[in-house]
Amino acid sequence: MKTLIVYAHPDPKSLNGTLKDLAVSTLEGAGHEVRVSDLHAMNWKAVVDAEDYGPDASSPLKVAADSGRAFEAGTLTADVRAEQEKLLWADTIIFQFPLWWYTMPAIMKGWVDRVFTHRFAYGVGEHSATRYGARFGEGTLAGRRALLSVTAGGPESHYAARGINGPMEDLLFPIHHGILYHPGIEVLPPFVLYRVDKMTGEDFADAAKAWEQRLLTLESTEPIAFRRQNFGDYEMPSLHLKEGLEPAGRTGFGLHVR
Amino acid sequence: MKTLIVYAHPDPKSLNGTLKDLAVSTLEGAGHEVRVSDLHAMNWKAVVDAEDYGPDASSPLKVAADSGRAFEAGTLTADVRAEQEKLLWADTIIFQFPLWWYTMPAIMKGWVDRVFTHRFAYGVGEHSATRYGARFGEGTLAGRRALLSVTAGGPESHYAARGINGPMEDLLFPIHHGILYHPGIEVLPPFVLYRVDKMTGEDFADAAKAWEQRLLTLESTEPIAFRRQNFGDYEMPSLHLKEGLEPAGRTGFGLHVR
Repeated sequence: MKTLIVYAHPDPKSLNGTLKDLAVSTLEGAGHEVRVSDLHAMNWKAVVDAEDYGPDASSPLKVAADSGRAFEAGTLTADVRAEQEKLLWADTIIFQFPLWWYTMPAIMKGWVDRVFTHRFAYGVGEHSATRYGARFGEGTLAGRRALLSVTAGGPESHYAARGINGPMEDLLFPIHHGILYHPGIEVLPPFVLYRVDKMTGEDFADAAKAWEQRLLTLESTEPIAFRRQNFGDYEMPSLHLKEGLEPAGRTGFGLHVR
Repeated sequence: MKTLIVYAHPDPKSLNGTLKDLAVSTLEGAGHEVRVSDLHAMNWKAVVDAEDYGPDASSPLKVAADSGRAFEAGTLTADVRAEQEKLLWADTIIFQFPLWWYTMPAIMKGWVDRVFTHRFAYGVGEHSATRYGARFGEGTLAGRRALLSVTAGGPESHYAARGINGPMEDLLFPIHHGILYHPGIEVLPPFVLYRVDKMTGEDFADAAKAWEQRLLTLESTEPIAFRRQNFGDYEMPSLHLKEGLEPAGRTGFGLHVR
C-alpha cells in the first residue's frame, strides 16, 4: 500500500501523535510506503482567501469557480498542489485527529477547504438534467480507500444509536460521505477511541494493539456500503433516494447505506 | 435585542457579506444593538496550539484541561476573551457562512475550537454517576438564542429528507445541538439559501426580503425543540434516550427533538 496519513494535533507527544507514529511504524514494518502530512508541523494555512487563487481571482471572490480555474491552470499555491499530488500518489488515506465539537479540528477542515478544490474534488464530470457530476462513488480519487482514526473525550454510550450526542456513524457521515466518498474514495469503518482523557496505561496498551490490528488488515477490510449516485438508486434530477430502497426503520443519513 | 453576528467569508462583496450587511442594517434600523465578529477582517487565528494557554500549558498539551485552567485564571489570549465577552453580552447570535463540505468554513470552526473553552462552554457543572454536567439545555450561555444563516451551492432537493447529501437539518445538527445547544443556547430554525451560484437578481431580491422578514421576527420565532439532558428524558449514566420517547419513525439525530 501507499498510505498518506493526514494528522492534526498541536502536540507530537499527544495520544494522537502517538497513534500517528504507531501507524507509520506498523505500516512501514509491514513493507508499505507511508507519507505524512503533519498539519501543525507544516504550519498549514487553514483559511481560504483570494491569495489562494492569484492575481486572476474574481471580484467578488467565487471560491468554486476561482479554485477550479486555478486548478486547471496549474496555478494553485504550492502547498495545495503538493497535497493534491500526495492524494493522487496514495491508495490509502488515514486521517488522525481528535474529535473537537463533534467534527475535525479547524486546521484539518482548512486542509479540506483548500485542497479539495473545484474540478479536482467536486464539479467533476457532466452536469445536466440527467447527470449531476461524477461523484459519490466516482470521481478524481476513485480507487482509493480512507479511514478516520478519531479520539473522543466522551464515553461510547453517549455516541450510541440512542446516545445524546447522536450516533458516531452519523456525526462522521458528513466527513465519510460528504467529503471522502464525494470525490470517489471508498471509506472504511472508523477506528474510534472514547473517553481518552481517562485512559490508563492498560487501556492504551489495548488500544495500541487494536490499532495495529486495524492497520495490518486494511487491505481486507470492507468499506461502508454507501450507495453510488449514478447507478440507478436515485431519482433525477432531484437526487432523492428511490422509494423502497431505504433500509427498514432508517431515516436521515442511514438511507444512503445499502 | 443585543445581537452578535459571527461572519465568515473572505470577500466583503460576496453574497455572505451582503447578507451580513443586511442583517446589521435591518436590526439596527429596528432599534437593536449589533456587534459583528468579521473573522477574515479580524485575521482570526483558526488553529489551537500551546500558545493559546501560555507558559503554564501542559506537556503533552491537554486542550480541555489547559483551556479550562486558562479560562478560570483569566489568562486566555485577548482575542478569545473578547469573543467570550461578546457571547456573554449578546442575547442573540447569528452565524453567517457558506456551507463548505457540508459544514462551516475552517476559520469559523477555529472560532469555535478556540472560544468555546473548557469550563466556559463545556465541562460546566457537576459530573458524577447521576449527572453529566450542565449542558444540552443548561450551561454558561443559557438564555441566549442562535440562528445559522447559510448559503449552499447545491439545489434544495439534494438536502431534502431523501436527498443524496443528507437532510440539511441533520447536516446542521452537530452545529445546532453539538456546538450551540451544548452550552445552553436555544437554536432557531436556520435560514438557508440554496443554489446560490445560480442566483439571479430577482432571486436575490426575494432572498433579501425573506432574510429581513426572519430578522424582524427573531423574537417571536420558536426554537428547535431539542430535549434537555437533565430533565428526565435520558437514562443515567448512559445518556441514552429513554425507550418510547422517540418520535415515530425517526432514528439518528431526529431522536433528540421533542
